[in-house]
Amino acid sequence: MTQQQTPAGKRPYNFSAGPAAMPEAVLQRAAAEMLDWQGSGMSVMEMSHRGKEFGSICTQAEADLRALLAIPSNFHILFMQGGGLGENAIVPLNLSRGKAADFVITGSWSTKSHKEAQRYCDARVAASNADNQHTKLPDPATWQLSKDASYVHVCSNETINGIEFQQLPDLAALGSSAPLVIDFSSHVASRSVDWSRVGLAFGGAQKNLGPAGLTIVVVRDDLLGHALEICPSAFNYKTVADNQSMYNTPPTWGIYMAGLTFKWLLEQTEGEYTGVAAMEQRNIAKAQLLYDFIDGSDFYANRIDPGCRSRMNVPFFLADESRNEAFLAGAREAGLLQLKGHKSVGGMRASIYNAMPLAGVQALVAYMREFERSHA
Amino acid sequence: MTQQQTPAGKRPYNFSAGPAAMPEAVLQRAAAEMLDWQGSGMSVMEMSHRGKEFGSICTQAEADLRALLAIPSNFHILFMQGGGLGENAIVPLNLSRGKAADFVITGSWSTKSHKEAQRYCDARVAASNADNQHTKLPDPATWQLSKDASYVHVCSNETINGIEFQQLPDLAALGSSAPLVIDFSSHVASRSVDWSRVGLAFGGAQKNLGPAGLTIVVVRDDLLGHALEICPSAFNYKTVADNQSMYNTPPTWGIYMAGLTFKWLLEQTEGEYTGVAAMEQRNIAKAQLLYDFIDGSDFYANRIDPGCRSRMNVPFFLADESRNEAFLAGAREAGLLQLKGHKSVGGMRASIYNAMPLAGVQALVAYMREFERSHA
Repeated sequence: MTQQQTPAGKRPYNFSAGPAAMPEAVLQRAAAEMLDWQGSGMSVMEMSHRGKEFGSICTQAEADLRALLAIPSNFHILFMQGGGLGENAIVPLNLSRGKAADFVITGSWSTKSHKEAQRYCDARVAASNADNQHTKLPDPATWQLSKDASYVHVCSNETINGIEFQQLPDLAALGSSAPLVIDFSSHVASRSVDWSRVGLAFGGAQKNLGPAGLTIVVVRDDLLGHALEICPSAFNYKTVADNQSMYNTPPTWGIYMAGLTFKWLLEQTEGEYTGVAAMEQRNIAKAQLLYDFIDGSDFYANRIDPGCRSRMNVPFFLADESRNEAFLAGAREAGLLQLKGHKSVGGMRASIYNAMPLAGVQALVAYMREFERSHA
Repeated sequence: MTQQQTPAGKRPYNFSAGPAAMPEAVLQRAAAEMLDWQGSGMSVMEMSHRGKEFGSICTQAEADLRALLAIPSNFHILFMQGGGLGENAIVPLNLSRGKAADFVITGSWSTKSHKEAQRYCDARVAASNADNQHTKLPDPATWQLSKDASYVHVCSNETINGIEFQQLPDLAALGSSAPLVIDFSSHVASRSVDWSRVGLAFGGAQKNLGPAGLTIVVVRDDLLGHALEICPSAFNYKTVADNQSMYNTPPTWGIYMAGLTFKWLLEQTEGEYTGVAAMEQRNIAKAQLLYDFIDGSDFYANRIDPGCRSRMNVPFFLADESRNEAFLAGAREAGLLQLKGHKSVGGMRASIYNAMPLAGVQALVAYMREFERSHA
């Protein structure tokens, strides 16, 4: 395997959908502290999770995440394991009480969540965009919400399909008193969250927050304590909350890396904006640059309704798909990595998470323009 | 926090029970490859788990673990999440078929396993050493094994209590046809495993194999495919096996670090021995040095029956416990970290896993001798 380099000799730009690119400053810090975290004589991986050193790392990470996402004090932050697919079972085990739950189907991930929940509750479909191949979000005014739903599940950004809620649904305004559950794995910390509309949010860390193996759960206090008897203790939100995420040994390295990422995000500025607000400005600019270029070309196409396109995951297709391999090979040569689309969708996908700078999207657009010029 | 150093200026010796010390060479390699794994232009944390780079890391780690532990071809190796406490539910969800299971209670961990399994099956106690405060293993000849048990659970090394099976029970010889399940979290790869006696082995990686957040499961093929309907898909052994541990995004960094550790273990030699056999020779020498010193002193005591003392976790007590704090403070000064005993047992505990060199135990014994001399 040869060294991949951008023309300027920098690290390549990595468009992986997850696990995904991390801020270079975070990786450098982790490398520097690998054998001795702040004079402790230990790698973070070698610390007892119950010792004061790791305790301080975990407490700081939680506080920084709370500040970063403006999480109100009546929500618990839980550091767990199992990822989004694990949460597809863990959420109904904790929240459904064995009764009904409503699912809004908008793509691959919400479809999986709905299917898995059927093991534990009466999992209903309140709305679906399957009839338009997940290219347009169903209007909340049309959702068939159940009177007796224990919760309503939404995937607020579909990583595979590239479709995103530009604002979270207001269930109360729709006549529902059920808590909203959002799977925000693939756009957490890319934009603000209106917590007044949310009961529980979960996400794997490996897209926007840290390495794979860490799952973030943010849950409103009143939703704790209602788990089914068959819920494993290690995945019972109340047990995890009562033990400050240390009922079982937590993924300590993941928490440390996420904590470094939270710090990095808090320090980012863009004009008058800081933290997530700054990232949101950058993400708007990055997405607009890429979508505008695609829309202005007959050589490339994105099929998602412009009103609900994802700022994080941009699937696109070459008009002539016989050029896909050449496109990917040339991209690798140009230091643009992991652009192949998900196998269920095909084509290309550029994931442009927080750690992707505008310069990376500019480099991608420049490559796409040149590829079009030389192949059109 | 001040820099902890051994007199020779080396890293301190870390006796944490887990997460625990890792081989320094492994940490150095991880630091060096942090920003660019083998010319890929990516950190391992930034790689898609479905890409060829991480695929090669995962395949190699599995092959190396199979070689290291001499795992027969009719066993699957699964890389999972949730740790030992997660497995306490995941094992009965997959193996019990909702029927009976037998538990041998030998300390804190087997007690927890038995309690959690009661959610899913008729979890029975086949034997217990609670009457002698978990200081002596119950003789297998006395175990009350059920005719209809779906499996028999044993914790082959109790991390908290410091008690270890010197050989695994031969259930067939005891008249049982049930598969043996072993929780080998805290002594995996410290000694060989007689797989002819085992149906399933599980362990958190964070003691002898890698960082927290990775769970190793080794399961005989015929035990796959019998999960209860309520088993979450992400924790269904057959689903995980059918997807080569990539049903959900695996803890990629943990697999990478464990893989580096497997390589390190395979390379170790001790006289004519290599790999685990070499580690076993070293571990015998380390444990003997420490137990012999403790037994020869009236100042320190270990309460476990000599026939079943753990080679990995050595709990010990000062005759005068009012000196505990002074002992721990002096140890830290001497570069000997994390010696405080588990809160449920008290006193001290030296965990001397594979990554602890003989020199570390020698330094501990020298410190203990000096502390005794100056305080007796």
